[in-house]
Amino acid sequence: MPVRVGVIGTGNIGSAHVRRLAGQIAGTTVSAVFDVAAERARTVADAVGARAHHQATDVIDDPAVDAVLIASPADTHAELALACLAAGKPVLCEKPLASTAAAALKVLRAEAALGRRVIQVGFMRRYDKGYVAMKAAIDGGSIGVPLLAHCVHRNASVPPGFTTEMAMTDSVVHEIDVVRWLLGQEFVSARALTGLASPLAPTGVRDPQLAVLETSSGVLVEVESFVNCQYGYDVRCEIVGSTGTVSLVDPTATTMHSARQRTQEIAPDWGTRFEAAYIAELQQWADGVAGGIVCGPSAWDGYAAAAVAESCVTALSSDDPVQVALVDRPALY
Amino acid sequence: MPVRVGVIGTGNIGSAHVRRLAGQIAGTTVSAVFDVAAERARTVADAVGARAHHQATDVIDDPAVDAVLIASPADTHAELALACLAAGKPVLCEKPLASTAAAALKVLRAEAALGRRVIQVGFMRRYDKGYVAMKAAIDGGSIGVPLLAHCVHRNASVPPGFTTEMAMTDSVVHEIDVVRWLLGQEFVSARALTGLASPLAPTGVRDPQLAVLETSSGVLVEVESFVNCQYGYDVRCEIVGSTGTVSLVDPTATTMHSARQRTQEIAPDWGTRFEAAYIAELQQWADGVAGGIVCGPSAWDGYAAAAVAESCVTALSSDDPVQVALVDRPALY
Amino acid sequence: MPVRVGVIGTGNIGSAHVRRLAGQIAGTTVSAVFDVAAERARTVADAVGARAHHQATDVIDDPAVDAVLIASPADTHAELALACLAAGKPVLCEKPLASTAAAALKVLRAEAALGRRVIQVGFMRRYDKGYVAMKAAIDGGSIGVPLLAHCVHRNASVPPGFTTEMAMTDSVVHEIDVVRWLLGQEFVSARALTGLASPLAPTGVRDPQLAVLETSSGVLVEVESFVNCQYGYDVRCEIVGSTGTVSLVDPTATTMHSARQRTQEIAPDWGTRFEAAYIAELQQWADGVAGGIVCGPSAWDGYAAAAVAESCVTALSSDDPVQVALVDRPALY
Amino acid sequence: MPVRVGVIGTGNIGSAHVRRLAGQIAGTTVSAVFDVAAERARTVADAVGARAHHQATDVIDDPAVDAVLIASPADTHAELALACLAAGKPVLCEKPLASTAAAALKVLRAEAALGRRVIQVGFMRRYDKGYVAMKAAIDGGSIGVPLLAHCVHRNASVPPGFTTEMAMTDSVVHEIDVVRWLLGQEFVSARALTGLASPLAPTGVRDPQLAVLETSSGVLVEVESFVNCQYGYDVRCEIVGSTGTVSLVDPTATTMHSARQRTQEIAPDWGTRFEAAYIAELQQWADGVAGGIVCGPSAWDGYAAAAVAESCVTALSSDDPVQVALVDRPALY
Repeated sequence: MPVRVGVIGTGNIGSAHVRRLAGQIAGTTVSAVFDVAAERARTVADAVGARAHHQATDVIDDPAVDAVLIASPADTHAELALACLAAGKPVLCEKPLASTAAAALKVLRAEAALGRRVIQVGFMRRYDKGYVAMKAAIDGGSIGVPLLAHCVHRNASVPPGFTTEMAMTDSVVHEIDVVRWLLGQEFVSARALTGLASPLAPTGVRDPQLAVLETSSGVLVEVESFVNCQYGYDVRCEIVGSTGTVSLVDPTATTMHSARQRTQEIAPDWGTRFEAAYIAELQQWADGVAGGIVCGPSAWDGYAAAAVAESCVTALSSDDPVQVALVDRPALY
Repeated sequence: MPVRVGVIGTGNIGSAHVRRLAGQIAGTTVSAVFDVAAERARTVADAVGARAHHQATDVIDDPAVDAVLIASPADTHAELALACLAAGKPVLCEKPLASTAAAALKVLRAEAALGRRVIQVGFMRRYDKGYVAMKAAIDGGSIGVPLLAHCVHRNASVPPGFTTEMAMTDSVVHEIDVVRWLLGQEFVSARALTGLASPLAPTGVRDPQLAVLETSSGVLVEVESFVNCQYGYDVRCEIVGSTGTVSLVDPTATTMHSARQRTQEIAPDWGTRFEAAYIAELQQWADGVAGGIVCGPSAWDGYAAAAVAESCVTALSSDDPVQVALVDRPALY
Repeated sequence: MPVRVGVIGTGNIGSAHVRRLAGQIAGTTVSAVFDVAAERARTVADAVGARAHHQATDVIDDPAVDAVLIASPADTHAELALACLAAGKPVLCEKPLASTAAAALKVLRAEAALGRRVIQVGFMRRYDKGYVAMKAAIDGGSIGVPLLAHCVHRNASVPPGFTTEMAMTDSVVHEIDVVRWLLGQEFVSARALTGLASPLAPTGVRDPQLAVLETSSGVLVEVESFVNCQYGYDVRCEIVGSTGTVSLVDPTATTMHSARQRTQEIAPDWGTRFEAAYIAELQQWADGVAGGIVCGPSAWDGYAAAAVAESCVTALSSDDPVQVALVDRPALY
Repeated sequence: MPVRVGVIGTGNIGSAHVRRLAGQIAGTTVSAVFDVAAERARTVADAVGARAHHQATDVIDDPAVDAVLIASPADTHAELALACLAAGKPVLCEKPLASTAAAALKVLRAEAALGRRVIQVGFMRRYDKGYVAMKAAIDGGSIGVPLLAHCVHRNASVPPGFTTEMAMTDSVVHEIDVVRWLLGQEFVSARALTGLASPLAPTGVRDPQLAVLETSSGVLVEVESFVNCQYGYDVRCEIVGSTGTVSLVDPTATTMHSARQRTQEIAPDWGTRFEAAYIAELQQWADGVAGGIVCGPSAWDGYAAAAVAESCVTALSSDDPVQVALVDRPALY
């Protein structure tokens, strides 16, 4: 019996997930969808034989839905996740878990009260081959004691409306999660530095930015976010240890030699760069649902990442480092 | 309705396919298996809820089997493929299509007589991201007119019993197929050169070897086969054109810096190197079966590769180049 | 007539320069040397047919010396440079120009008063092929407007006595100079961040460190200094512009494939990494001396680098960014 | 006392050598030059304060010439080398030692009769960092027993008049020498294969070519020569051993990220690619002359390379491998 997934939100991310669940993931079907854009939802539903509902909660309540994937706008995530908790249905919630740390905390407390994990947050990088190999190297002691991390997160461009703060909450949040996971440590403080803005960034948007975070053991984690870099999507990460370092390699398929140049292509966007990670994430989530297990990034991870990103936003208007204040970690996590 | 696949042969390759079909491919189930090792077949079958048959043909004839995957020993392929043709069931036949070109030709003629494609041959490299990008570059004119190809195919080691000739029929045959496909040309002649054998190769096995092939347009294709190279599995390919070249990049996830060295890992074996290609191959085959379409490497490709590999074997005992004699290509292909 | 060079200081750096001047640089001889370790000086002198003097100033005053190379301890540089100015003899002063910015300023003012350039400071990286190509790319507009710089400066280890502050004045000072030169801008502020110290660094030494500097146009320049990284000497630099980036490539001669790894060697130390840069530096300096021209890094560069490095040291004990205060640039520079 | 060098031939190669000897090599001056183009010779001579002679032999006989560098057309090399032998003056003869193996043999016999080495042949690749590191790796046992070699030698284009045969005698001869040196073995046979010619090669010129050589121990050495590859100068070499391989890395200074591409520059020509090797070659030759030592590639190397290249030319019109016939190696070498 395949896992019947209900998908809430059929925009770019949601419809890509529907396409993957229906066409590339073993053991799943998409049985229901919802989107505020009803026509788009119907088109997506029809393509995979799913039912298009009129309300998001109808997807959650649909008896033909075993598990829910939330890919609607960020400000709807917390409420929908709570509804899934109430219904006791496993949910993969696209990041962020909530649009504020406070809202994420509410979800976290609800799940902790329930006493079992229902929620996975969609930090897909943890399923990328490169990060997985980095974690294995670090955990295996290949670099000694981690001391520093250098991260780069560049987008060719971003949609209109992307603000200075969103660079922290939408972009850097990925590095926040993946470095927490790589190091197995929480962040305790954050600095945000901005200098000359790119003339190609929208007026008033401070881009690029440097976030400098510190973990509980004192690892300094430096993250460049540059969301209008023009040239492509480029994500880098190096963890520097006391005896060596491990770095992500940008995947590339071919090298060209022509016109006095040796050339490799750079991915145009995150969808291309992390497609294999999305597939792995969904397959493992679906397998877990089928087996009654929820693992992967938890509500705690979603809360912690949101709280750290908010500290980075606060740091944007402070010369001093901003302390990260996390609640005590519930025993569930 | 998922495609119900019957798998014949549950050795390393067959059981890996079963695992993929059941756990990583959308829209398929494994409904039946067979292996001469009945117990192994049963174990594999039980793990995925399939039925274990007592004869290979029972798998083909099973009404609960929509499509067949042949992964039994090479000398059984032709007969089983013919049985699938007789049953009219789509079949993915692991390479080789047959253990001799003559046997492959028989299968080819049978399919041509049937008048529609039923058979796909398991040349999985055509689904590797690197080769796919190379083909796009060549077809897009990025390197001008193809003139030369350099290929390397190295295995850390091979099982006992691997002969000098098998380097051509089992290893080089992959380069034969993929270069035919990259260039859209047939081979017309083959040379085989051997020199000093590795002291680590079994006594009497000429390893490494150089095959030098020529295509219909005069492209020289040089292939190193080295099946006891010790250090890992390493496949390379460069197509040299009149204005540039395109080369495969060996996939790697991380770079380590330690102990005065910058290091990247090399894959241990072909299964690791081409895992993603196998997944893509199976998904596209399953999608095709569901949609009533057979594409991918054809019986003609299986025949042509076998015929060229046999010319390479003949060339091992000849100083002169050996002409490749192919029958006329049936209109079906 | 060859340029007759007098070399003050025959420790590691000085004797390497003597060896280069005598054996690899066209148009020069080493005619005189001095070192406080008289025996070492004599040995070095004898090897190249030079005279060993009893005092540093004797080298400067020697009529058989056309130009002076200062490679003695840092705290002697300023006084010796002033003596060269007084004697009107061209001088290549190993970095730093002086052990404090104040002392460097004194030298700067003396040269400015003289009204012509006599002093070149030994920032050899400006002669490295990689940095030269980076500058050409930046100046040629290939990356658009520079916005950020990422630098890494790692040593396998450092001699006993190397302090937290020396990481700024001895190591980071190279990045300070070369980025000033690459961007054609002065620095206006500096931050210094330290976190978890390597367990392999001497007790009390804060290593690694992150310096984050800002230039007059607002370019953020981040520099990791890690002087006990164990694995080798590793220098990296990327300048991020509004349309692209340019990065230094670590020179490497070969790639090995063995034991499941693809491996390239990392240089053991700066002498190996920058040997070709030292040769280029000395040849261009000698050519300039012969032609009556002094170019290359100036006393102003030496002063500015020292002043910025001192700001970095101050920043080590400050949470706030430290402003860099430079005197007005004399018209000579 | 500097070594006073007389340079015969002031075309591109000769005048580059004059420039290097005068401006980049320690311990040398250029005291005399000759070229059939008298005006060009005078210009070159004046630039470095040398005397321009009216005959090549006047350079050799000039008492102000300690050593001779031959960079005149290939067909004059043997006679001039013999004259240097007669005069007992050390000579660096640009490759080839002679325009035929027979002529090279005559020079070889003359030097052997003299009983001491006077001649070095200008195979500069032996001074390239990459090849030097390859030799160290091979000699150090890092790859086990050498079994195969893959070489690529590509030029963007060649001057008018460059023939099919010259690809062997002018281009491949470099690989012949450097692989002989890397392996410490002589070649015993040669094959030459040509297929489709580049539409951008001059009519009638078979370009690219594949030479496949075999050494005395049975190492197969495959060399692609492509002298009209358009995209740049690209030289590659991999030696495959029984436990690993070692490959040349193409030197590069920077990586650019822009316009969806990661890009490194390819050298435009051999002069750029091997400039550092030329410098090292000249410095070591000059040092040897000063010390009364001649080492480096010998007349035997020049003869052997010429003989093997001639076998490659013969092989161009033969389907069978051509045996290389070398005279016995005189005891001097």
